[in-house]
Amino acid sequence: MEQKNLKDLLMEVAAGRADVTDAMDKINNSGFAELDFAKVDLAREKRNGYPEVIYGEGKTAEQIVGIMQVMTQNKLNILGTRISKEKFEIIKESNKNAIYFEKARCVTVTNHEIPTTESYVAIVTAGTSDMDVAEEAAITAETYGNKVERVYDVGVAGISRLFNRLDVIQGAKVVIVIAGMEGALASVVGGLIDSPLIAVPTSVGYGTSFGGVTPLLTMLNSCASGITVVNIDNGFGAGYSASMMNHL
Amino acid sequence: MEQKNLKDLLMEVAAGRADVTDAMDKINNSGFAELDFAKVDLAREKRNGYPEVIYGEGKTAEQIVGIMQVMTQNKLNILGTRISKEKFEIIKESNKNAIYFEKARCVTVTNHEIPTTESYVAIVTAGTSDMDVAEEAAITAETYGNKVERVYDVGVAGISRLFNRLDVIQGAKVVIVIAGMEGALASVVGGLIDSPLIAVPTSVGYGTSFGGVTPLLTMLNSCASGITVVNIDNGFGAGYSASMMNHL
Amino acid sequence: MEQKNLKDLLMEVAAGRADVTDAMDKINNSGFAELDFAKVDLAREKRNGYPEVIYGEGKTAEQIVGIMQVMTQNKLNILGTRISKEKFEIIKESNKNAIYFEKARCVTVTNHEIPTTESYVAIVTAGTSDMDVAEEAAITAETYGNKVERVYDVGVAGISRLFNRLDVIQGAKVVIVIAGMEGALASVVGGLIDSPLIAVPTSVGYGTSFGGVTPLLTMLNSCASGITVVNIDNGFGAGYSASMMNHL
Amino acid sequence: MEQKNLKDLLMEVAAGRADVTDAMDKINNSGFAELDFAKVDLAREKRNGYPEVIYGEGKTAEQIVGIMQVMTQNKLNILGTRISKEKFEIIKESNKNAIYFEKARCVTVTNHEIPTTESYVAIVTAGTSDMDVAEEAAITAETYGNKVERVYDVGVAGISRLFNRLDVIQGAKVVIVIAGMEGALASVVGGLIDSPLIAVPTSVGYGTSFGGVTPLLTMLNSCASGITVVNIDNGFGAGYSASMMNHL
Amino acid sequence: MEQKNLKDLLMEVAAGRADVTDAMDKINNSGFAELDFAKVDLAREKRNGYPEVIYGEGKTAEQIVGIMQVMTQNKLNILGTRISKEKFEIIKESNKNAIYFEKARCVTVTNHEIPTTESYVAIVTAGTSDMDVAEEAAITAETYGNKVERVYDVGVAGISRLFNRLDVIQGAKVVIVIAGMEGALASVVGGLIDSPLIAVPTSVGYGTSFGGVTPLLTMLNSCASGITVVNIDNGFGAGYSASMMNHL
Amino acid sequence: MEQKNLKDLLMEVAAGRADVTDAMDKINNSGFAELDFAKVDLAREKRNGYPEVIYGEGKTAEQIVGIMQVMTQNKLNILGTRISKEKFEIIKESNKNAIYFEKARCVTVTNHEIPTTESYVAIVTAGTSDMDVAEEAAITAETYGNKVERVYDVGVAGISRLFNRLDVIQGAKVVIVIAGMEGALASVVGGLIDSPLIAVPTSVGYGTSFGGVTPLLTMLNSCASGITVVNIDNGFGAGYSASMMNHL
Amino acid sequence: MEQKNLKDLLMEVAAGRADVTDAMDKINNSGFAELDFAKVDLAREKRNGYPEVIYGEGKTAEQIVGIMQVMTQNKLNILGTRISKEKFEIIKESNKNAIYFEKARCVTVTNHEIPTTESYVAIVTAGTSDMDVAEEAAITAETYGNKVERVYDVGVAGISRLFNRLDVIQGAKVVIVIAGMEGALASVVGGLIDSPLIAVPTSVGYGTSFGGVTPLLTMLNSCASGITVVNIDNGFGAGYSASMMNHL
Amino acid sequence: MEQKNLKDLLMEVAAGRADVTDAMDKINNSGFAELDFAKVDLAREKRNGYPEVIYGEGKTAEQIVGIMQVMTQNKLNILGTRISKEKFEIIKESNKNAIYFEKARCVTVTNHEIPTTESYVAIVTAGTSDMDVAEEAAITAETYGNKVERVYDVGVAGISRLFNRLDVIQGAKVVIVIAGMEGALASVVGGLIDSPLIAVPTSVGYGTSFGGVTPLLTMLNSCASGITVVNIDNGFGAGYSASMMNHL
Repeated sequence: MEQKNLKDLLMEVAAGRADVTDAMDKINNSGFAELDFAKVDLAREKRNGYPEVIYGEGKTAEQIVGIMQVMTQNKLNILGTRISKEKFEIIKESNKNAIYFEKARCVTVTNHEIPTTESYVAIVTAGTSDMDVAEEAAITAETYGNKVERVYDVGVAGISRLFNRLDVIQGAKVVIVIAGMEGALASVVGGLIDSPLIAVPTSVGYGTSFGGVTPLLTMLNSCASGITVVNIDNGFGAGYSASMMNHL
Repeated sequence: MEQKNLKDLLMEVAAGRADVTDAMDKINNSGFAELDFAKVDLAREKRNGYPEVIYGEGKTAEQIVGIMQVMTQNKLNILGTRISKEKFEIIKESNKNAIYFEKARCVTVTNHEIPTTESYVAIVTAGTSDMDVAEEAAITAETYGNKVERVYDVGVAGISRLFNRLDVIQGAKVVIVIAGMEGALASVVGGLIDSPLIAVPTSVGYGTSFGGVTPLLTMLNSCASGITVVNIDNGFGAGYSASMMNHL
Repeated sequence: MEQKNLKDLLMEVAAGRADVTDAMDKINNSGFAELDFAKVDLAREKRNGYPEVIYGEGKTAEQIVGIMQVMTQNKLNILGTRISKEKFEIIKESNKNAIYFEKARCVTVTNHEIPTTESYVAIVTAGTSDMDVAEEAAITAETYGNKVERVYDVGVAGISRLFNRLDVIQGAKVVIVIAGMEGALASVVGGLIDSPLIAVPTSVGYGTSFGGVTPLLTMLNSCASGITVVNIDNGFGAGYSASMMNHL
Repeated sequence: MEQKNLKDLLMEVAAGRADVTDAMDKINNSGFAELDFAKVDLAREKRNGYPEVIYGEGKTAEQIVGIMQVMTQNKLNILGTRISKEKFEIIKESNKNAIYFEKARCVTVTNHEIPTTESYVAIVTAGTSDMDVAEEAAITAETYGNKVERVYDVGVAGISRLFNRLDVIQGAKVVIVIAGMEGALASVVGGLIDSPLIAVPTSVGYGTSFGGVTPLLTMLNSCASGITVVNIDNGFGAGYSASMMNHL
Repeated sequence: MEQKNLKDLLMEVAAGRADVTDAMDKINNSGFAELDFAKVDLAREKRNGYPEVIYGEGKTAEQIVGIMQVMTQNKLNILGTRISKEKFEIIKESNKNAIYFEKARCVTVTNHEIPTTESYVAIVTAGTSDMDVAEEAAITAETYGNKVERVYDVGVAGISRLFNRLDVIQGAKVVIVIAGMEGALASVVGGLIDSPLIAVPTSVGYGTSFGGVTPLLTMLNSCASGITVVNIDNGFGAGYSASMMNHL
Repeated sequence: MEQKNLKDLLMEVAAGRADVTDAMDKINNSGFAELDFAKVDLAREKRNGYPEVIYGEGKTAEQIVGIMQVMTQNKLNILGTRISKEKFEIIKESNKNAIYFEKARCVTVTNHEIPTTESYVAIVTAGTSDMDVAEEAAITAETYGNKVERVYDVGVAGISRLFNRLDVIQGAKVVIVIAGMEGALASVVGGLIDSPLIAVPTSVGYGTSFGGVTPLLTMLNSCASGITVVNIDNGFGAGYSASMMNHL
Repeated sequence: MEQKNLKDLLMEVAAGRADVTDAMDKINNSGFAELDFAKVDLAREKRNGYPEVIYGEGKTAEQIVGIMQVMTQNKLNILGTRISKEKFEIIKESNKNAIYFEKARCVTVTNHEIPTTESYVAIVTAGTSDMDVAEEAAITAETYGNKVERVYDVGVAGISRLFNRLDVIQGAKVVIVIAGMEGALASVVGGLIDSPLIAVPTSVGYGTSFGGVTPLLTMLNSCASGITVVNIDNGFGAGYSASMMNHL
Repeated sequence: MEQKNLKDLLMEVAAGRADVTDAMDKINNSGFAELDFAKVDLAREKRNGYPEVIYGEGKTAEQIVGIMQVMTQNKLNILGTRISKEKFEIIKESNKNAIYFEKARCVTVTNHEIPTTESYVAIVTAGTSDMDVAEEAAITAETYGNKVERVYDVGVAGISRLFNRLDVIQGAKVVIVIAGMEGALASVVGGLIDSPLIAVPTSVGYGTSFGGVTPLLTMLNSCASGITVVNIDNGFGAGYSASMMNHL
């Protein structure tokens, strides 16, 4: 609880204007809905700026539907990630407004409109195979009201493709670079821009790419400054952080 | 080279106002100074917003002095990291304005003043032993004109210490969380704020902390959103990225 | 063999009251039943306080049925873990009293009643996906006569959910914390209680969670004291150890 | 804050018997002392049953002295771990009552007497070289009021040594097993007792013992039940958890 | 852009013989074709000596067809790797000239003839199971105009098989050695020849071969000189580099 | 070629009794049969004491049949390992004398009888799930003429089962110990016998057993002497080495 | 205790010829001497064929002296490994008969003569730097009465050196191969002999040799049969096992 | 032995022109000199094109001197690597012609002149700290008669430095790229050239660079083709292979 609010609340209690039980609830900050299988965090938008996101992996379609109902009742916008097409078929029956983004494997429901930013997030990929992760990042950022520019398949093996699109990248407020294999693109882009760069390693590759560990290490050790990194294939995390930065 | 500048330059050439050799140099963008042992990147401030930083590890004091001379001649502000006290003793002889920050192991020279931000970066550590990395981050951010608030030793073993300082953390435009051992602090702080969080794992710990790998993994897998991560003990990187974000 | 018993036995032999062959058997302590494919350890309850547990992975339904017959003949209570629904269909044909717990993937047969403790074990999970491992722990503890309180989905991303249930957790004699991803919940709970905490990492997560290695490392390096750790996804082991502690 | 206390406090505020500022402090639970370099957690004994422990690694003797002063002023018993003899020489000048345990590298100050348990903790080691870790566990347990029995150098290469001391081990309320190299002793002891076993891997060994990773893995995968594990060389953690269990 | 060409171009501009927009395009070096899902690098043959290769993994048959069309239009020879038989069935419908190599999982289209070298590349394998990787290397090298000699199944367990074929190996201009399991063959061959050796570890093996990591490490640490290494199972890379060397 | 034979051969040549081409062949020692897909090492029995073994993984049934034909023509006894039941169905059509061992996944053909040893190899397993690997070892040893004693399911969790069979183990000329999970059985047996012990880690286990890496490390670091180790699940290798030792 | 002895003992007790207390001692098999810091296993020679070995690492010279006194009193031959020259200077003052082997870092005391075998152990190394480990193996084997032949510096980079000494290697009853870097020598030798081969990886190498992990993996995955492996740099273990085999 | 020479030799024997003992020696190919501590491989220049190289690590100055004497007697050129300045002080006393290269830590003795190539090897480094490894590569290549061009400190953080020197790199017959940290430079250069590229990872970096493992993985997974890789810090290996290729 924020200190100012706490003080106000206690003064209300002291003045007899607030009930002790209500005050306890508020201090306990129990802003969540209790389902059989989950405690939906309704206060997250207030606390973090964004409502709770539904991570679909390991949840049944029914569980997802249940959480979506609670969120819709609370007029929260919904973003569900890592949701298969099969699950979405079940979900959309009870959520007519739900939209599915197949490449991104995301579901969204707009329960209230939010404005779009003037500034944009550039999402840059090394290869065609990184596109799914890139779309997860793009849909996340767009859902949170960000303008997005996609610059795909500009890996360093043919670096002129990158230079050709450099203006778009340099014009962004935040840049996301997504790459598998050796992940060198992050360093090269990082050396050419003056805005924050979020690097996303992908599990694209074979042998010693070790399911994305190699580009992760590459990105953590970049000789270029201004690069921060998220988990392997974590397009959502990159889009989320980019949105935070783009709204600063 | 930016597309607009390239166009202008070519039109100058076409108009006979620019010399072909000069144009070649500009297109080659040779904005660096060649020393025996290094090519100092003088164009970096223009390109990245910040001048080249001198990474002191693996360089002799003499090499550092040489690079500092070139930068001073070009009126660039200087930040040197990972510089031991012994090296600084030699450096300061030829750089009277150089200042040494012992805990941070940083050297700075102010060759032109830069303004300080209104908004601030909060730097939060789990324990006393994380302080050196925190100071590297703090000095970096301050050198680049950021106001910094330090919130040290608020690890989750005594979580009330953290809640007591939560207002300062929640008021920041950007938050850096620095922790060794299991690094859980990043997730807890990440769940309580609505601004970007840069997590820095440190090599503090023993046994299975594996020199910082454990908190790194913790931070990459955080259940809280909005967290991006830098290399182990990379206080500089965190301060640099935080500065980029704080200036957005 | 305990020293006192050995002395008594030898004095019986010396006094001619005990037969040499019988004495050999007792000293060899051959308290097991020999099947074609297994040696069932019938003395384990006496030695360890609990009868042998049937680990179902890598055993056929027929082998499990065989072991259960021997145990039932010896009036031992039965707990089988990691048993699929398919195997249970076969098992229950010859074991009418066998009960199946689907989420926990456990089978139990009560061959003699045991009392339930007054004190309870609290089982705390970070997320919905950790529930299967939690149920394995819960069924194990309940089978061994422990009262269990379940506190599920209280991960640190929405820490108020945890604080809301803190009274239940602080009231337990033993606490089990189960978490995947970064596993930070163990440290946070550990800092808030004065009873032993058994931490169970789960394989929930992706990328650098490395199938549960990341939360395992987190838990081993916790800055909070009083935490001990078991193998990844080892709900049974946690429930077993918790039962031992709850019965102290 | 416990729910009952919170309710009482709010009723005091409502009744006008408590001051708003005081109530804020209590809710914020600011039970710590702020030093330049640390926030000493004075509420930990109340919360966790034991006062904060001073982890000596990475702290200067002066910092340790400072923390000890605050704790002594608050009449808290002191346990410092991983403190070198050199640091102790400085510490004892301002702490005449401080006692140093050289093998355990621990410092203790008794600021109030605590009773010793009837039941005991057995500490069992595989070899002579595991003794330092064992002593850290033993001093920790003794400092917290536990009777301790030491059973050292009974590794499985000469298993008769173990059987010879089995009565002592089986009579303990809690058993700590400490082993390096392959760490097999934990499994063997675990198969012979009916009390909780805390296993501590040590960094004793060479080559593929990987600084204690091998016995750690051995202990996590033990075929015997009832074993929980702590970090490599973490004698303190084992002694602390054993004390918690022995006091149940 | 090459310096000489840049100079010429700028002089054309200065002389008014070249248009500014055209010059911009040339300097930007936009030698690629933009598809929906890919940017095909048409300048690669000029830059690297070989046209872009289509890496089939993670691309749909339709995407591969699209890229092949662009390349055929540009009269580039085509090599596609890691293409399953199923995908080829679709590909060949619109590419009558496409040839499929099943063991190598490669597709080729000859859009212009290239001469074959006099000197040859020897491809040596340790076992029968390494043959698929070997064929990928062989087809790659042959597609690029190299004569290839195959020496298969001559692993060190029966070293006389190797000595029997030594003349063929010693007569090669470049040697590729392909081995899984422990990969010792590379060192043995390396000690017997005076030409460059490219070593390819394969994922053949089990247990601690770790999917090819073991032969990779073996090859990187070879006591014989003149050995360089490529990624696990990277037959293409070995064939490509061998072709470069064979054409020197 | 053995020095004595070389000398003899050269003297034959010098004396004109041997042909130069024949001598070349003999020196080249080309004792192998060349198939399309393999070079069958016919000289191995002479060189190593045992004929070449057919490792079935990664070979088609047809390839196995081809190698078996060559070996039968050369009157060599045949052992094929890692051969699935499906492949055997094809194999037996052209090899009426082939026998299949299902648990061991081995095929044998006896083309000439060999005598059985008086002394025996004891094969000891920790659990029921280690039986497949044990049978691979047993069939290998028996095929090579060794008497084998099986002592299965005597893991250290119920150590009395082991002591009950200790006489059989101590009477063996060579002992093979096979264990997954933590693999402690090897150390315990190693401490109780005076004959060579070959330890085989198995991939039985979950979580941090890492597919057999944990018992492998345990066995390599055993505090008991006289233990040597083979690859994970390598029952064949253990049986082969045990046969070598049993025939000494 | 062996079953036959146990039966005899019990019959003695039953007949009144043996005392109960004596029988207890014998059954407990307390064949060790209790020192302050160690329990010396005096029964090991009887049980394992060799007396306990003193592993010097982590023991003080005084502790080693103490153990040697007990062993000398019991007329046991002494072998101490990993003993520095500094420790030996202290040891020899109270052990006039102690001999030091500097390269091997071993100490021996002959308290009774043992015969030397006719058959020999061949110890083969890849390079000059593997010699220390080789000498540890050689001294161990010689101390236990084995004839040893040293074949040093015959690594596969110059394989003719190996072939030149092949007669000596092929004539051995047991072969030890010691190699660092990539460890390929073990496979090559293994393919050429018909006696058991013990492979010892050494920590010789740099970069990706990872302190001996690379040759260890090489040796575990050898395509040649009949190879078993010991821990990195474990010359003692190889010598010990070789002695066991040479005495079969 | 080459087949042609073998045939000739045997025909000499058959004709009575060659002695049997001499023939044996030649077939055994005993082209090495036996020292106490080493077998110097004198035939290597004939076999591999280059004489044996003295790897200085783990050899005493005296051993190095001994090997140099044998090589000088055989008129072989000498290259010693990883030789400290201290060792060189001793070496030069008995080798007046020995030259020491301090950065490269190499010693050379020219016992016969060799010609220098027209074509050159370009050695490219990312940073100043990679220079020692680069010099080892350069001295190796120069010793073997190659012209070398050094292009140092052109890492991708300031990519214009690289483009500025691109002509030199593109003009080389072979390119060596040396980089630590994330090693991205190899991919960028690889995408811009049409000659073979040898990549050398260095141990420059901290945290997750893991002593060079990160750039090694980067280089093995490069999206650019034509790159082969050597061990971490293996400047010698790169220079050696480059020389082989440059002489093709």
